[in-house]
Amino acid sequence: MAKAARTKLPTILITNDDGITSPGIRNLVEAVKELGKIVVVAPDKPQSGMGHAITIGQPLRMNKVDIFEGVESWQTSGTPVDCVKLAVDKILHRKPDLCLSGVNHGANHSINVIYSGTMSAAMEACIESIPSIGFSLMSYNYEADFTGARYYIREIVSTFLKKKMDKHLLLNVNIPAIPLELIKGVKICRQAYAKYEEDFKQRKDPHGKNYYWLTGAFVNYDKGKDTDVWALENNYISMVPVQFDLTNYTLKTQLEKTWKIK
Amino acid sequence: MAKAARTKLPTILITNDDGITSPGIRNLVEAVKELGKIVVVAPDKPQSGMGHAITIGQPLRMNKVDIFEGVESWQTSGTPVDCVKLAVDKILHRKPDLCLSGVNHGANHSINVIYSGTMSAAMEACIESIPSIGFSLMSYNYEADFTGARYYIREIVSTFLKKKMDKHLLLNVNIPAIPLELIKGVKICRQAYAKYEEDFKQRKDPHGKNYYWLTGAFVNYDKGKDTDVWALENNYISMVPVQFDLTNYTLKTQLEKTWKIK
Repeated sequence: MAKAARTKLPTILITNDDGITSPGIRNLVEAVKELGKIVVVAPDKPQSGMGHAITIGQPLRMNKVDIFEGVESWQTSGTPVDCVKLAVDKILHRKPDLCLSGVNHGANHSINVIYSGTMSAAMEACIESIPSIGFSLMSYNYEADFTGARYYIREIVSTFLKKKMDKHLLLNVNIPAIPLELIKGVKICRQAYAKYEEDFKQRKDPHGKNYYWLTGAFVNYDKGKDTDVWALENNYISMVPVQFDLTNYTLKTQLEKTWKIK
Repeated sequence: MAKAARTKLPTILITNDDGITSPGIRNLVEAVKELGKIVVVAPDKPQSGMGHAITIGQPLRMNKVDIFEGVESWQTSGTPVDCVKLAVDKILHRKPDLCLSGVNHGANHSINVIYSGTMSAAMEACIESIPSIGFSLMSYNYEADFTGARYYIREIVSTFLKKKMDKHLLLNVNIPAIPLELIKGVKICRQAYAKYEEDFKQRKDPHGKNYYWLTGAFVNYDKGKDTDVWALENNYISMVPVQFDLTNYTLKTQLEKTWKIK
């Protein structure tokens, strides 16, 4: 019996924001299912753009489902962050060894980290002292090719499992939607300064009243070659370490020196 | 004619997450209405805990409303972040000089900054290069006394308007719910390391099925005297400068040195 089989397998919680029936989460489960005891707790419907939303004004439902062969799986009516909270408190009754979120359909690089349900679920785990990684593929295509994503996700997760991980480890990993052989490797990056230029599209309902659809163009203001946007444009997988202390220490020092508010 | 009346008044966008009919936003409008041209764009219903959620899968409605005497006001069906985006793109058609969010009913100190719709609206403005301040009062009471909050909000906003503000200025201001004369002043702080210990409460519906309410106890792990939690416990108003670059630079340097993922 190999040594790996005799040692206790790590418990890996998997969640996402596209919903439990999306190809992304299936590919994530398939990529890592040999690496640990997998438990899936994910939303019962798409929750993209939910950011770090939690459900306060309504109760939550959760149901065991049979979706991934041999993998304990639950769907909930909550947001991605709710899923992590429910998993720890009501399903696992303890903290898993690692939390993986995704694979998101579409980029979560640069400022997208703020809006992303995928990354918020990973951040919630990190706040709970669970090392955590969010994965995203740079394609919204339902038929997207996950071959490269699966290869590198397995590489990254098995590498991390071999190390003593910081309990507040939180990584935002974005994967270019190109064939495996064209991916140049994994680059550790900082979050690019980029944002959306909003452009709401106006429509009229049958009663003549206006309504608005949020759209916008992604604009990168950051020319650095150490950013996630640069890495992805150059066929690297980007890996950005993320934190939940939002204090702007530079501005704090400035304010302490210059501002007098009694 | 005084000089102030001759110079162009700054445009101040006001939003919140408790909804346009909450006492908090009324008190914020009252506190600053002499300091600029106020435009209110706020949710038509409570949106607490929405974090940085945006509305992608549904269109948005917005309607002009007559709520605050002499103040242009709009309610929208969107989240706090949607409100800021709509205000800039469809109502003001330009960036305001300052964005104020709140006054939130309840604390947004420490880790609450992550879940807070109030702070996410302010952060969205900051991403748009609009200096921005989120205000919260440490009381959920609908009848809470805003006298101290109004006094200090006016002090803080008028102080900032006199300075050349960094376009990415973003402040998280929490105000203790105590009488004005007991407030010791404004303290510039860092975000405390604190979190919620979740405890979902289980209920049964009339059909015998379980559902769950999110509850939790706030636990402060941070003994520092430079945190927002410490300031508030000691009757100061806490002011934390906030940023939207979530890169963990310390971990980035560590990973660059120690991790090899091809």
